[in-house]
Amino acid sequence: MRHVISALVMNEPGVLSLVAGLFSARGFNIDSLVVGRTENPEFSRMTIVANADDNTLAQVKKQLAKLVPVVSVSDYFGKAYVERDILLLTVAVNADKRSQVLEIVQLFRGKVVDVADKSVMIELAGTEEKLEAFIELLKPYKITELARTGVIAMARGMQKNQEETAQIS
Amino acid sequence: MRHVISALVMNEPGVLSLVAGLFSARGFNIDSLVVGRTENPEFSRMTIVANADDNTLAQVKKQLAKLVPVVSVSDYFGKAYVERDILLLTVAVNADKRSQVLEIVQLFRGKVVDVADKSVMIELAGTEEKLEAFIELLKPYKITELARTGVIAMARGMQKNQEETAQIS
Repeated sequence: MRHVISALVMNEPGVLSLVAGLFSARGFNIDSLVVGRTENPEFSRMTIVANADDNTLAQVKKQLAKLVPVVSVSDYFGKAYVERDILLLTVAVNADKRSQVLEIVQLFRGKVVDVADKSVMIELAGTEEKLEAFIELLKPYKITELARTGVIAMARGMQKNQEETAQIS
Repeated sequence: MRHVISALVMNEPGVLSLVAGLFSARGFNIDSLVVGRTENPEFSRMTIVANADDNTLAQVKKQLAKLVPVVSVSDYFGKAYVERDILLLTVAVNADKRSQVLEIVQLFRGKVVDVADKSVMIELAGTEEKLEAFIELLKPYKITELARTGVIAMARGMQKNQEETAQIS
């Protein structure tokens, strides 16, 4: 089962090393791990995407929460939340096939950020699923370079008013 | 000096722990570190943003390149490249001030991804500088939650044709 886990951690050197060590020691397979700044410079937010059975996952969350610099751990599974991942991708196309690629970019509401005579660089943000579908469609055009950030996530609405929340996207 | 460093690494457990350990052992202060998938499932790309003097930086790059699972290390400093960071951000505004916030979002070409009666969630992608400016402008409206991925980067054009590259964005 795919789980998106969010951990609020102290923004100090060594935290990433500690968490990464916890995962690698347990051979726990993670799809992506993002450490980014938050609204408060004292804290960072780690977002971890992992496929694991409920038992393994419960254990990992418990171990995470026990680490001293970890303030809180939450799991978005089954909750209403928004997730975003962003990619930069270069496709090797010349003028011949460029318009086919641009059509796909438009359909996904991506953005062309650089053009050379034999390549196009594209930016696309969205859910992991959307990004996977986009990459799949571009594979026939020879992707020469691809970089992805991994997933960040945020709960929708205010918890109190979850029922009233308008889900726009 | 701000440097964006990119390292191609083997996609295997323990690499993140190794690299994070290298930084924390040297007390090297990094602004952001992103590990993400690439066009080849065997490799991951690490993008590191750091402020450091040239000496410290040269040392760190050398140490990085020495690690067994690190395939290559490059520095975008002084080169033509595109960088992207993405944020999700919740502002506590009610209907009164919502239009002021939406105006700022439009100017930055951000996207509203969720609305509740007392909050708005916004998605914005761009350079680190753009994101910082956006956050600064929204500070008066009480930011209740903020998550950022950190920076990914990619060299513009084909190296051979760098002169001919059209720099769109």
